[in-house]
Amino acid sequence: MTTDFPIAVIGAGPVGLFAVFQAGMLGMRAVVIDALEAPGGQCVALYPEKPIYDIPAQPSITGGGLIDNLLRQVEPFAPEFRLGQSVESLEPVPAGWRLVTSTGAAVTAGAVVIAAGVGAFGPKRPPLAGIEAFEGQSVFYCVSRRAEFAGKRVVIAGGGDSAVDWALSLSEIAASVMVVHRRPKFRAAPDSLTKMQALAAEGRIELVVPYQLHGLEGQGGRLEAVEVIGDDGAIRRLGADILLPFFGLSQNLGPIRDWGIGVSAEGIAVRQQDCATGRPGIYAVGDIAAYPGKLKLILTGFAEAAAAVHAARRHLHPDEAMHFTHSTSKGVPVLAA
Amino acid sequence: MTTDFPIAVIGAGPVGLFAVFQAGMLGMRAVVIDALEAPGGQCVALYPEKPIYDIPAQPSITGGGLIDNLLRQVEPFAPEFRLGQSVESLEPVPAGWRLVTSTGAAVTAGAVVIAAGVGAFGPKRPPLAGIEAFEGQSVFYCVSRRAEFAGKRVVIAGGGDSAVDWALSLSEIAASVMVVHRRPKFRAAPDSLTKMQALAAEGRIELVVPYQLHGLEGQGGRLEAVEVIGDDGAIRRLGADILLPFFGLSQNLGPIRDWGIGVSAEGIAVRQQDCATGRPGIYAVGDIAAYPGKLKLILTGFAEAAAAVHAARRHLHPDEAMHFTHSTSKGVPVLAA
Repeated sequence: MTTDFPIAVIGAGPVGLFAVFQAGMLGMRAVVIDALEAPGGQCVALYPEKPIYDIPAQPSITGGGLIDNLLRQVEPFAPEFRLGQSVESLEPVPAGWRLVTSTGAAVTAGAVVIAAGVGAFGPKRPPLAGIEAFEGQSVFYCVSRRAEFAGKRVVIAGGGDSAVDWALSLSEIAASVMVVHRRPKFRAAPDSLTKMQALAAEGRIELVVPYQLHGLEGQGGRLEAVEVIGDDGAIRRLGADILLPFFGLSQNLGPIRDWGIGVSAEGIAVRQQDCATGRPGIYAVGDIAAYPGKLKLILTGFAEAAAAVHAARRHLHPDEAMHFTHSTSKGVPVLAA
Repeated sequence: MTTDFPIAVIGAGPVGLFAVFQAGMLGMRAVVIDALEAPGGQCVALYPEKPIYDIPAQPSITGGGLIDNLLRQVEPFAPEFRLGQSVESLEPVPAGWRLVTSTGAAVTAGAVVIAAGVGAFGPKRPPLAGIEAFEGQSVFYCVSRRAEFAGKRVVIAGGGDSAVDWALSLSEIAASVMVVHRRPKFRAAPDSLTKMQALAAEGRIELVVPYQLHGLEGQGGRLEAVEVIGDDGAIRRLGADILLPFFGLSQNLGPIRDWGIGVSAEGIAVRQQDCATGRPGIYAVGDIAAYPGKLKLILTGFAEAAAAVHAARRHLHPDEAMHFTHSTSKGVPVLAA
């Protein structure tokens, strides 16, 4: 009875990556699963350029820089990244746990370290009836192939940088660009706002403010119009081929609640000394782990990851004495690939 | 009733320095006391050039590099360093604690964070009767002014790099150099050993092996001879003006045992969640702090320092709500000097 990996880490944010490193130091190769398409979690998705000041021995480092460093640190241990998929279920198997992700892929691991932060990230979906049927064909939450929108009537919804920046960019190729925002005021870089106002004055972008999304018209996944509603209840119908809602990222702890490990408003309750949950071989670390006096700092998550991975090693090898040595004594071990 | 500083940190190793940083982030300027003459603790005293691999987001950093980074990180908070003195006593005063150091200097602080690692470092003193009387005049544990040994008969004791390197260096200026080691084999850099063997073959260094120090002759602090004893019990008398014992550093938890905070073989017992000791306002972090499941890693000490300093802040300002914000939101606060 073996498992695909000794250890699975759920979440490729800074704390999950450091758990991967610690696992490697203890001779355990990790599989890492994350809902986002790239490692880094919030650091990369929310503040890649923002400096962080309280990482020990890093007087100032950006979220992106922190992740770059951690990726270099895990590199010798060749972790397997499974990205763009969230873990949907976690079921016991004789030698550990079986994880099934949103793509339907399964993997088994002897121990599981949940470093899921605030949960799986995903785009915030506007509450419009039947929107799912349009997603991927007429409704997109991010732009991966800009050229596909050439000659299309595009409606962008949102008031932040993504909405404004894509309005500017797509105005160059789309048949029309309308920007729907519930307030007259946008929250975006001043320079971009100035440009958008100029294009609006020229009639190349139409600002539909203050309006909110109200409904979708079309069939077979093909959008014909977007309905919007004003503060006074008046409804406008905007002819459209494409809707791009840019309402930011949502955080979804949803599936984790179904794993039977006790998720409260604070997160997953763990015993602080080893970050053990109530289920054997499952540990929780970082922002999702809760215990009395918890400080939600990245550096706290790093220490929790070390404690959890050491405990996981003992859990998987109960008869083996831990030969605890400092990294200065033995360097970085080499794992068989 | 005020104190000289809101917080005193005992120990200027990496964990102590990070406690200083965290204190600064919470608006508290720290005084830092260390027995060594420079900040850095073991990182600088024992392995300044050795790479460390398990500091999060530092794929490889030397002990010296780690301390340099931490010193840059604390710089905005202008901590007061009191170096070359160990804390001898810790007594309660109305607003906190009064610390008296080995130089007789006193300082008061509202809270105390003990980050003393394995205790105060000092040179290992050989167990020779009356050696104290010769220290500073004929017996030295480190060489600060090499030129003072010109023309002198020097006996060096020890088998490591310090013994070998100083034998090489002083052979250029001393009247004679003898190296006493209890084994024929030295533990030093191969290149240095080769050089020492060559000088021994030329008669410019005498290797007195296998011998151990046995006694000192002289009066008024002025050394006349060093007695050494062989494995067979035979005693030799080596005429000498200077003895340099290089037996490494000793670790002395001694005075801390007198502070009434309960020091066991494991260290100072603390409550893990806030690193509180049994005495109000005194916290212990890093290698000296003990609790079930403790991992003695630098990164664990960093997290403990954060927890202790947050607790110290609450202890000093019990009526004040903590406005917890991430460093990305507010940056590094500026403290009044």
